[in-house]
This record gives sequence, structure tokens and C-alpha cells, in this order.
Amino acid sequence: MKTLIVRNADVLQCDEGQCRLLRGHDIVIHGNRIASVEPTGTSRADETAEVVSASGMLAMPGLINTHAHVPMAIFRGLAEDVNIETWFNEYIWPLEANLTPDDVYWGMQLGLAEMIAAGVTAVADHYFHMDRAADAVARAGTRAALGWAVFGDQGADGVRRTASFAEQYNGAADGRITTWLAPHAPYTCDDAFLGAVAVEAERLDLGIHIHAAETADQTAASVASRGCTPIEVLDDIGVLRRPTILAHCCGATLADLELMAERRCGVAHAPKTYLKLAMGVAPVLAMRAAGVSVGLATDGPVSSNTLDVLESLRLMAMMAKHASGDPQQMTVGDALTVASRDSARVYGLPDDLGLLAPGYLADVALVDLSGAHTQPPHDPAASLVYSVRASDVRTVICNGRLVMRDRELLTLDLDEITYQVGESMARLSRRVPDSRIQLYRP
Amino acid sequence: MKTLIVRNADVLQCDEGQCRLLRGHDIVIHGNRIASVEPTGTSRADETAEVVSASGMLAMPGLINTHAHVPMAIFRGLAEDVNIETWFNEYIWPLEANLTPDDVYWGMQLGLAEMIAAGVTAVADHYFHMDRAADAVARAGTRAALGWAVFGDQGADGVRRTASFAEQYNGAADGRITTWLAPHAPYTCDDAFLGAVAVEAERLDLGIHIHAAETADQTAASVASRGCTPIEVLDDIGVLRRPTILAHCCGATLADLELMAERRCGVAHAPKTYLKLAMGVAPVLAMRAAGVSVGLATDGPVSSNTLDVLESLRLMAMMAKHASGDPQQMTVGDALTVASRDSARVYGLPDDLGLLAPGYLADVALVDLSGAHTQPPHDPAASLVYSVRASDVRTVICNGRLVMRDRELLTLDLDEITYQVGESMARLSRRVPDSRIQLYRP
Repeated sequence: MKTLIVRNADVLQCDEGQCRLLRGHDIVIHGNRIASVEPTGTSRADETAEVVSASGMLAMPGLINTHAHVPMAIFRGLAEDVNIETWFNEYIWPLEANLTPDDVYWGMQLGLAEMIAAGVTAVADHYFHMDRAADAVARAGTRAALGWAVFGDQGADGVRRTASFAEQYNGAADGRITTWLAPHAPYTCDDAFLGAVAVEAERLDLGIHIHAAETADQTAASVASRGCTPIEVLDDIGVLRRPTILAHCCGATLADLELMAERRCGVAHAPKTYLKLAMGVAPVLAMRAAGVSVGLATDGPVSSNTLDVLESLRLMAMMAKHASGDPQQMTVGDALTVASRDSARVYGLPDDLGLLAPGYLADVALVDLSGAHTQPPHDPAASLVYSVRASDVRTVICNGRLVMRDRELLTLDLDEITYQVGESMARLSRRVPDSRIQLYRP
Repeated sequence: MKTLIVRNADVLQCDEGQCRLLRGHDIVIHGNRIASVEPTGTSRADETAEVVSASGMLAMPGLINTHAHVPMAIFRGLAEDVNIETWFNEYIWPLEANLTPDDVYWGMQLGLAEMIAAGVTAVADHYFHMDRAADAVARAGTRAALGWAVFGDQGADGVRRTASFAEQYNGAADGRITTWLAPHAPYTCDDAFLGAVAVEAERLDLGIHIHAAETADQTAASVASRGCTPIEVLDDIGVLRRPTILAHCCGATLADLELMAERRCGVAHAPKTYLKLAMGVAPVLAMRAAGVSVGLATDGPVSSNTLDVLESLRLMAMMAKHASGDPQQMTVGDALTVASRDSARVYGLPDDLGLLAPGYLADVALVDLSGAHTQPPHDPAASLVYSVRASDVRTVICNGRLVMRDRELLTLDLDEITYQVGESMARLSRRVPDSRIQLYRP
């Protein structure tokens, strides 16, 4: 089995709100898992091992993006300064009428290139033509939890589509791809449709990744039309009996949070989208207090413009302080626990990702803290939350394999990707209101 | 006179909420000012001119930081997750008891290096030992509006210190340095002290840079103790008869805003500090609606951790949408107007900075939009607000002179700076509660 040694890193380990920094340690990787983390100079020599020097670098677990629509990178910048109804009905859903399988293939590669360069090694992605997204993930060498998004008006065909993709691709790309069933949302899927998806998820022993209670307005609309909150709808129908990734939940009530904790739901938190679309504040502190797992997410790059999980981390921490009026909340240790262990839990691999320790999958990002903006290094953990930029990530390993080294992407060809996406720009930016793929009317 | 030509840039010009992009233009610089902006290929050949290729790059005015305490970079990361009282009384003011003139010199260089690398060419800085900060600015080649911070308990000595520095250094470093008088805040300076500063400012025909109404609590405390708001205090004493930079104003009332507009005050807006310390939201939309000029700022890097004006820009825009509940507010054009023309106004050089047009000072940042996170380029202006990172700034010109080229700092030696600051880390991080320089008790 191939051995890769990350030599002489400062290894950051965070859990339950506490961080420790193991200075000057080697991370020894056998195959796709971490074999040991030990002080540099103490490991047995292995002449055949590949060595990556990490002197002066911080090693952190590869970041996890627990909810995105990565291929939407091709539409980046096309829907600015609009409200959520306009965003859906006049921009996104008309724009998505232009979408081809090839667009998803190249858009996914563009977004994966962006994420690798930002230290993100795993993404739970929720979009269309996911067979082509899977091709892109196979090529990129990263990890993805893929779900083929479907709407209630697709009926039995939609249920089959999301289920058959999930069945076929679970474990693909040497196990780097896992799958989820992906109904869009309670407001675009009726109860019968959601129930059928839950039955399929049960049959396949897989989880469900869905948008839920995105805003307080959606919760109010659900109570008015269905007599209960979107979270209660999902519970009644049986969706929450499966493992779930619930995207956003800015509109979750306190009673919802208790239910979500009981059902062990995971919440994907994408604060940049909430700010840009003025969707309100997701009650992250209350979620965590109730025992709900919260993971970091970016959402799609037409609302968030970037796929930068470090940006989500910083915004989450700052907005928790702001919204609670208490700057002592969401400490650096809490925030980094969300970014590592808790995001791994939401992603569905709690015992495999989010910690640089023996037995865990070898997803590692090496961060250079020598830039002026991160000096002097009084507190490297605080730097990670409040000073570091995606561009400080120098080297990235996923599943035991180098995917970026000294800022050079090793698996993807950004020039080719940029060319291919650029060729489609004019076609992709044509809005086709009469052919919008759905109508937002929660 | 030396000529520098920025060749074939996409030149961004923003004003009054509108942006236009002049694709494929040359910026011709004579000495320290822009002589012309014209389509590439149309300018007269000048064999002696230095040429900077900017193909594929966006040219924007050098960013302006309208309020900072740059040398505090040396304390970065030492005061996390604490409330504002603790931040001042247990951290900052005890830490500042350690401060030597040399610390300011090296800390200022560290922060200037960070800012140059982030496209920031001008900073209004408010701190101590400003003669040494001026030495650092002279070396860096950037622009600064410096004020020596003083407190009321320093009495006549304090007034003399801030006035004599301002008198001596105005116009220093070939005119790149301008000066302001810099009393700390109404809550640390009594009326007599502030009045004496205003008299000195009048005598010297200079402005006053001061913290004011930082939080709603400060406003309430002022009303309770002095019978009027901090802004009214400053007006009564005569401070607002001078040009002013008022830092923060999260606690300004609507009546304050009208007064501030009438007195043509400038407000420095530093949203990252407000979020991290849970100081509330500065009413930026209301300020702008009332006719008050708002400029971008970072504040000091112990509260904001970075000196990244692009980060302030993004946070300002997102928080305006969030706080108003209306994502149509603070458009990309509005945000970039704040970042350019309006920040120049607050900085005190409204007709010299903030626009790439003939006659303006030649402060230019060239931004590379070829990264995965800024592709495809559907909307370069939106990219600048929502996708670009400081690391995308490739080349920076200040006062007609290159200060960074292709990411290489040309005026400052970061290795030397990092070494010097690193040498002092242990001494600087010792908190000396008994020797705190002030007590926060608004």
C-alpha cells in the first residue's frame, strides 16, 4: 500500500469546542487513511514513501461543504440584487431551462477546481444531470455526496430518477462518491411524492438531502396551507426517519429544533446566501444547544457567488455573535468544531472525516500562515476563522492522494474548463421566462 | 515627467450607484496623476514610458481604508470571543502598555504590506507614535491620513501632541501624508479637551478624526450623563464645524444623521468589527439616504483581524440587505460607489481619489479575474463585491509609482518585517492590567 507522509506540519485537531495544535508533527498516510500522527523525527523511515514538506504550515482536515449546487458556477453573477421570488422565477429557473448535461460536467469541474483551491475536499451536491457531475468528481479526485434533484411535478419518473441515480452511483469513484435521494423541497414536492421518495430511501438504505424551512415565510406558508411547519411535514411523511441533510432551516421553530434533534437531522448552514437574499438568520446557536448537528455549506454560486467554505465559517461565527448580541458566543473552538467534526456528521461520515487522527480518511488541507494578514501567529486557530483566505491553502490531499500541490491543481485543467465554460456564456445567460423549470410560490 | 502606462485594462468607473466598464483601455499616468484613459491602441507612443501590461485584468481605483489602527497588527489574534468592555479593559489597553515607538514602526509596515497586497493604497490611521507610522508610510510608498490619538486625561499635553504632529507632518512623504487631529472619543475626552482640539484644528485648518457613537449603549450613556447624544456633544463643542471622520456611528440616531449630513461629516464604516464585537448594525442605508458620506474601513486588526477593505465592502453590502430585509438594497453599483468615490470623500480627497479619470491621483489596483472563483465573467462588478479575494489583486500603483507588481512587494521587505514583529511577540502578548492606558466606562 502506498505511503504518503505530510512532514512537520502544525496539526490542528478540534472537537466539542476545543482545539489543540500539535506542533511539528508528521501525518503518515497508508492508502486512503491516516495511519499515524506523530512528532516529526519519531516515525520509522520508509524509503518508498512520498513526502510532502509542511514546515511552517497548518494542517487541517479537508473542508466539507454540506450543501451546494456546484454546477451553477456557470451562472455566477447573473442574479444580483433581487429578492428571493425574483431570484427563482425570473432568473434561476428560466436560466436552468438552458442547462445541458455537458454544462453540468464543465460547471461541476469549475466548482470543484474552485473548492480544491480553497481546501474543500468533500461536497454534498444537489443538482441535475448528476451522472455528469459524478464524472467530474471522478476526474477531480475529491469526495462528493451526490443527489439528483427532483420536483413533485415529475411524479413517479422523478422518484425513479433520484432513486436510480443514488442506487447506481453509491460507492462510485473508488468509494469517494456517496449518494442521497434529493427531492427539492416541501414547497415544490407534494406529500405523496415525498412519501414515495422516503420509501425508496428506506429500500436503498440511503439518506435524503432536501431544502427545508428556508425562510420564516416558508414556514408560515406551510402552516397556513398544510397546518404544520415544513419540518413537521417531513416528519409526518417519514422523510425524517431516514438520515437527512436539511438545507438552511432559517425558518425552523424551536419546536422544530427539538424534533430535528430527536430525528438526528443534519442542518446545512450557508450564511452568505441568507445575507445576500435577506432570508433571515438561521438559529445556529439554538440548533447546537438543542443538539442538532450543523455543518458548513456554501449553497450554489448564484446566490453565494463563491464555493468558499472558509467564508461560510467566518460568516457563521460573526453572525452568531451579531444575532445573539453576545460576542462570547460561537468561540473559535466552536466554529472550528462546526467546520470539522460537525460538518462530517452532517455529511454522513462522522467517523471517517473531520479529524486528522489515525483511522480517519486522509483528506488534508495545508494552510500557509506566513502571509502579512496572518502575522504574527499569536493564535493560529483564530487566524483560520478570521484572517485566512482560501488562497492561503497551498496543498490539498483527498483520499490519500495529492489533488493540489503548491497551488498547482493536479487533477483538473482550469484553462480547459475556463475555455469550455466561456464558450457557453452567451447561451447560458439567456433568460427564458416561458420555459422556467419551476415556479416559486411557497 | 515620468510616464507610466497601464496597458489594455478593463477600467471600472463607479459613481452615484452606477458602474461602467471601459474594456481594453490604457491608463496613461504622468508623474503622480492620471493624464488620460483611452482605448488601447489609440494613445500616442511614448518610447520612454514604462508599460505595465494589464490584459485580462480589471483596473479599479486603489482602495481606501477610512479608519484603522494599523500598527495593532502586532496584537492580531490576542483578543477573541470577548465583549467590548473586556476587549478594552482586559486586553487592548493593558496590551498597549507594552507599546514602543519601534513596535509602531514595524506594526505599521506589517499592516501596510497586508494592505498593499490587498489593493489598499490609502489609510486614515488613528494611533500612537505616529511619527514612526509616518516613517513606515514614507517607506511603503502609499498614502495615509494620519492622526496621533490622544485622551482627555492627557490634558494640554495631549492637545499639543495631536496638533503638533498634524502640523509637522501634513504634506510629508511627497504629499502622500495628510494629517488629522485625533482625539480618541467623546467617552474618553471631556468637553474642554475636545473644545481645545477643535480650536487647534481651526488654527491649522485641518480636520478631526474621532470615534463617535460606536454603539447604542454609548449613545444612551451620553444622553444619561451629558443630556445629549455623542454626535450632539461633538456639534455643541464645535468639533463638527471642522471636516470630520466619525468612526463607526452604529449608535447614531436619525436626528444625529440629519445633523451629520448638515455638517458634512464623513462616517467610517467597519462592519467586521461590529459583527465580531456584536456592536449592532451601523445604519448605512439611512446614512446614505440622509446624505451622509460613508466610507469603507477595517478598524484595527485586533477587532477585525484583517485590514482587508474588500472584505469590508462585501460585509457592508450583505449586512445592508440583511438588516433592511430587502436584497434589492445596496446594489453592486451602490457598494462600489461607497468603495470608491464616497470613501475618497470621507478620506478628505474627494476630487483626487476614487476615480480612474484624467486629473485624479494615480492610485490603481489591477485585479486578476481569471481564478476559478471569478469565472465565468458574466458580471465583473459583481465579482468585485462578492467573489474577488484580496489575493486576486496582482499589481498596485500609488501616486504614479508601482508598489506591488505581480504579487511582489516592491517597497517593503515582508521577511524583515515578519522577523522584527516575531521577535517582539512574547513581550507584546503580556497583558498588564495594572498598567492599562485607559478604562472603558462610557
